[in-house]
Amino acid sequence: AGRMQSSRSKPCSCPSLKLREVASMYFTMVAAFLVILVVALQGSAPRESDFPYKVPLDLQGLLELSWNVSYPEQAVHFQLLIRELQFGLLFGMSDRGKFENADLAVLWSDGHNSYFGDAWSDAKGQLHMDSQQDYQLLGARRAPEGLYLLFRRAFSTCDPKDYLIEDGTVHLIYGILEKPVHSLHAINVSALHGGLQRVQLLKPNISIPELPRDMKTMEITAPDVVIPSQETTYWCYMAELPEGFPKHHIVMYEPVITVGNEALVHHMEVFQCTADFDSFPHYNGPCDSKMKPERLNYCRHVLAAWAMGAQAFYYPEEAGLAFGGPGSSRYLRLEIHYHNPLVFKGRRDSSGIRLFYTATLRPHDAGIMELGLVYTPVMAIPPGEDSFTLTGYCTDKCTQLALPPAGIHIFASQLHTHLAGRAVVTVLSRDGREQQVVNADRHYSPHFQEIRMLKEVVAVFPGDELITTCTYNTEDRSRATVGGFGILEEMCVNYVHYYPQTQLELCKSAVDPGYLHRYFNLVNRFNDEEICMCPQVSVPQQFYSIPWNTFNRDVLKSLYGFAPISMHCNKSSAVRFPGQWEKQPLPSITERLREPSPRCPPSPGPQPAVPVPLQLGQLRRD
Amino acid sequence: AGRMQSSRSKPCSCPSLKLREVASMYFTMVAAFLVILVVALQGSAPRESDFPYKVPLDLQGLLELSWNVSYPEQAVHFQLLIRELQFGLLFGMSDRGKFENADLAVLWSDGHNSYFGDAWSDAKGQLHMDSQQDYQLLGARRAPEGLYLLFRRAFSTCDPKDYLIEDGTVHLIYGILEKPVHSLHAINVSALHGGLQRVQLLKPNISIPELPRDMKTMEITAPDVVIPSQETTYWCYMAELPEGFPKHHIVMYEPVITVGNEALVHHMEVFQCTADFDSFPHYNGPCDSKMKPERLNYCRHVLAAWAMGAQAFYYPEEAGLAFGGPGSSRYLRLEIHYHNPLVFKGRRDSSGIRLFYTATLRPHDAGIMELGLVYTPVMAIPPGEDSFTLTGYCTDKCTQLALPPAGIHIFASQLHTHLAGRAVVTVLSRDGREQQVVNADRHYSPHFQEIRMLKEVVAVFPGDELITTCTYNTEDRSRATVGGFGILEEMCVNYVHYYPQTQLELCKSAVDPGYLHRYFNLVNRFNDEEICMCPQVSVPQQFYSIPWNTFNRDVLKSLYGFAPISMHCNKSSAVRFPGQWEKQPLPSITERLREPSPRCPPSPGPQPAVPVPLQLGQLRRD
Repeated sequence: AGRMQSSRSKPCSCPSLKLREVASMYFTMVAAFLVILVVALQGSAPRESDFPYKVPLDLQGLLELSWNVSYPEQAVHFQLLIRELQFGLLFGMSDRGKFENADLAVLWSDGHNSYFGDAWSDAKGQLHMDSQQDYQLLGARRAPEGLYLLFRRAFSTCDPKDYLIEDGTVHLIYGILEKPVHSLHAINVSALHGGLQRVQLLKPNISIPELPRDMKTMEITAPDVVIPSQETTYWCYMAELPEGFPKHHIVMYEPVITVGNEALVHHMEVFQCTADFDSFPHYNGPCDSKMKPERLNYCRHVLAAWAMGAQAFYYPEEAGLAFGGPGSSRYLRLEIHYHNPLVFKGRRDSSGIRLFYTATLRPHDAGIMELGLVYTPVMAIPPGEDSFTLTGYCTDKCTQLALPPAGIHIFASQLHTHLAGRAVVTVLSRDGREQQVVNADRHYSPHFQEIRMLKEVVAVFPGDELITTCTYNTEDRSRATVGGFGILEEMCVNYVHYYPQTQLELCKSAVDPGYLHRYFNLVNRFNDEEICMCPQVSVPQQFYSIPWNTFNRDVLKSLYGFAPISMHCNKSSAVRFPGQWEKQPLPSITERLREPSPRCPPSPGPQPAVPVPLQLGQLRRD
Repeated sequence: AGRMQSSRSKPCSCPSLKLREVASMYFTMVAAFLVILVVALQGSAPRESDFPYKVPLDLQGLLELSWNVSYPEQAVHFQLLIRELQFGLLFGMSDRGKFENADLAVLWSDGHNSYFGDAWSDAKGQLHMDSQQDYQLLGARRAPEGLYLLFRRAFSTCDPKDYLIEDGTVHLIYGILEKPVHSLHAINVSALHGGLQRVQLLKPNISIPELPRDMKTMEITAPDVVIPSQETTYWCYMAELPEGFPKHHIVMYEPVITVGNEALVHHMEVFQCTADFDSFPHYNGPCDSKMKPERLNYCRHVLAAWAMGAQAFYYPEEAGLAFGGPGSSRYLRLEIHYHNPLVFKGRRDSSGIRLFYTATLRPHDAGIMELGLVYTPVMAIPPGEDSFTLTGYCTDKCTQLALPPAGIHIFASQLHTHLAGRAVVTVLSRDGREQQVVNADRHYSPHFQEIRMLKEVVAVFPGDELITTCTYNTEDRSRATVGGFGILEEMCVNYVHYYPQTQLELCKSAVDPGYLHRYFNLVNRFNDEEICMCPQVSVPQQFYSIPWNTFNRDVLKSLYGFAPISMHCNKSSAVRFPGQWEKQPLPSITERLREPSPRCPPSPGPQPAVPVPLQLGQLRRD
């Protein structure tokens, strides 16, 4: 591809209505394009507030991505800072962070000239120029700290080669070009030095609630920890509230990250300990250490949770998270996940979470409710599945009994599975008709579990149903994966944050064990196999001994879609609401939500498939 | 929508590279458009050979559609003759011929001006202008016989509101506008006078084989029949070959339609009778008459078949269909399906089929082989299903035994189901990997079963597998539909025409009856139901007594996808090839054919969403 000039102009005549229309549309587009370009390049630099979200892409902090989301335009504007540019860079997205079948913006140099283009990688990692250019370059700027690239991408491009930017997790990928490149086709991404970063690109567009005047702050931070020189560390630190600390409402919290460690602090949580014990020992060390006091396992009530890429978390104006006061433990546990795959040594860290709280209690206490599946082995996933789904129900009968007549308001949600989880979605259903999605993540990763503010608060009334479906991948496993607490067992949970707080803490289900027993019997008879159905054999053992084939798999699927359920409609994990909760009918859905058909970009619209030449001079200064 | 002028022109300057590109692309497009327009309008009329395929749309013959297919352009060109235009016309396509959710070209008049546009109807029949105009008007021309409209449509437009034109049956629909219309939105198609016509739009692009010099013709036609004044008549007429007529090869055949009856003659077939009887009685009357001799049921060997919209049928140069000579019956049965829903009275008809045959035998006899499912009740469809599939197999073991080492060549195919059939597809698989589609009709209708030439001849070798899948709709039924000969029972058959002829006449399968028995047992135990499994109860009775729910349905589906099969690898319907054909393993597929991703039109490309004004004068001359 030769270099092109872009400023020639010669007269022509517009021959018809349609050309005039095309032309006028095009002028609008060029105008919009120029305005953005000017905004971006006029001042010395774009203001930080133009790109409120920021995340490091690599572990050395050489690549820094900031972005903003325009819901009216249905587009994301990216600002990528490249601190040490070599011969170019790939940046893009793929379903689960693989370099193959990815959608990529590419900046490349042949040693003399630089180009920018929209490309995609095939199943073998080979790059191809996209026939429709949907990463739109808005500007490029040299600054002392590095090169800034500004570009735009519509959520949905209707190009089948493009990634569809959806709510929830997006797997961002980057790759470094270390040699001059003469054409895009010369690049195989699988061979590049690069990496992956998970973020929630489509941050909800919510206004910040008004904060109380008497707001105070409290930092729960690690006391100058030396980050262990190993890939993964969960660090535990015990903090405590002052004696006699009365009831307060947490109204917001934000991360406190030690400068320089932005790429190492993966996620952090503050847990409150149970009030069942009067005191908890001090501790400051790895969570999996043999030295860790066993009692720390009783500190599991989430007060705050942050993950990389997340910002401050605000409670709605009507509610706050209660802490302090009688019946509440003074003891807090800070847990930090350090992700250190380059095994840096001797890095010191004092990161943590800053709580903003008030003594002027808001009208409502916020609560957390667990939706999804009971932690029981009766819910199992056959081995070798690429996307097997399990569904947990919060039934109309339970919400009828436990929710106040005015309903509750869900404002945030944290999705949770173990390692096989690939997608989680909770849908609200009323009278058998699906009403709205509470929270959905089609690219969910168990390595990126953040509390997410919902785009809109969801009102749930008595008689409503909340249906949570998790999708699992067990292609790398040779035996069934059963439900349970173990890391190789599975969970399907949505922790929803809501107000006003109710007694309902758990609204989850599992298949009726009697029907599961019939299934084991059926598999036994149908396949002429000897599966021991003796009562002394546990459910996991029975699952492990099933000879998996399409029939046994399909029938298990059918069983989960048909058999009655056992409900946990509980005040706490041990105390059920009164009522009959066994052999409950499966909620039936008569009307499903329709998949939103992606909006295609009307304008500026995609650009022709030619690389855009850039005036950057030589990229690498050797 | 106001009227627009289309010939103004004013100077402008082209400001950038991209506009120049857009403009140049546009000029190419306009040029192509003008050329077509000129071709279409220059002579007094387009030549008939420009539009080789023709079909009446309505039953009075007021609307006549001709078309051609351009595979290089991936587009269909339509010429629609409207003999008595009122205030406009709708023409389009929908999945199964419904007026709702249809893709329509609309010609409408407000009483003064006329417009043409691409529209779609929603689930309620309401018309909407399409945001992407994919029916492209190429010209309109008044002639003594009526108004000709010429327009073009790409097979695939990538507009989700548009119908994807695929191989196989296309349901064309039309509607008449009997009053002036002020805007598209004022039209509700469900209320219009209109109708449906099924055609194979994408005729294969095959060259006509060379015909022998000594070719003779023979017409098998109805002897001046008075078409009964009832909607549906199957007419039977017995013809016979001369005594001592030696073996010949049929090399082609074509329809002979009495002028004026083009819309009434729905389909015709010529069958040869069995050689088991020396003579057959004469007959000329309805096929379902009590007077019809029972022996006519032994005339079932297809010699020729034609359906509305089909053209002449040619055998490949290497092969012909044998008839005449020893071991072959002299008696032929012509069957004509008259479709007369307007119950015209006293229409006389002498339609039929003209056979072209030669005494100079070609290298190979052509043969017909039955693929799909055995006619047995063990293959059943639950009630209330919108698309339940059943699959019949021709296994590697059978083709290994029965096909010659050089293989056979399939050149034509006729798909067959009873009334619940909605789609049929046969795929060729080799070593577990799907190789190619033999014939597919995703919009199959049991009312439109024609013999279709394949786009390309398919070579099948010993060890190959032929897998035929039928999709059924039983939403209007309350009990199971079992396999069988009855009109309310089902079949799944692909009659493939091939050469050289082999002994293999039937290569079909059904689920192993023992496994079906286990299924009945399982349903019984699992559902606590009393289904009589006594041996004296027939398989249909057992199916009829199943309490259908999602579990019983899903498990039946799983059974058909898992259980071993019983193979019919037969020389004739009663004589099997030697070998073990019971409890055969299901062919496994390790690599599926990928769905072809539809090509979007690169150019001329869609036009902006404005109606095109036409200079037709007032449409209706009252």
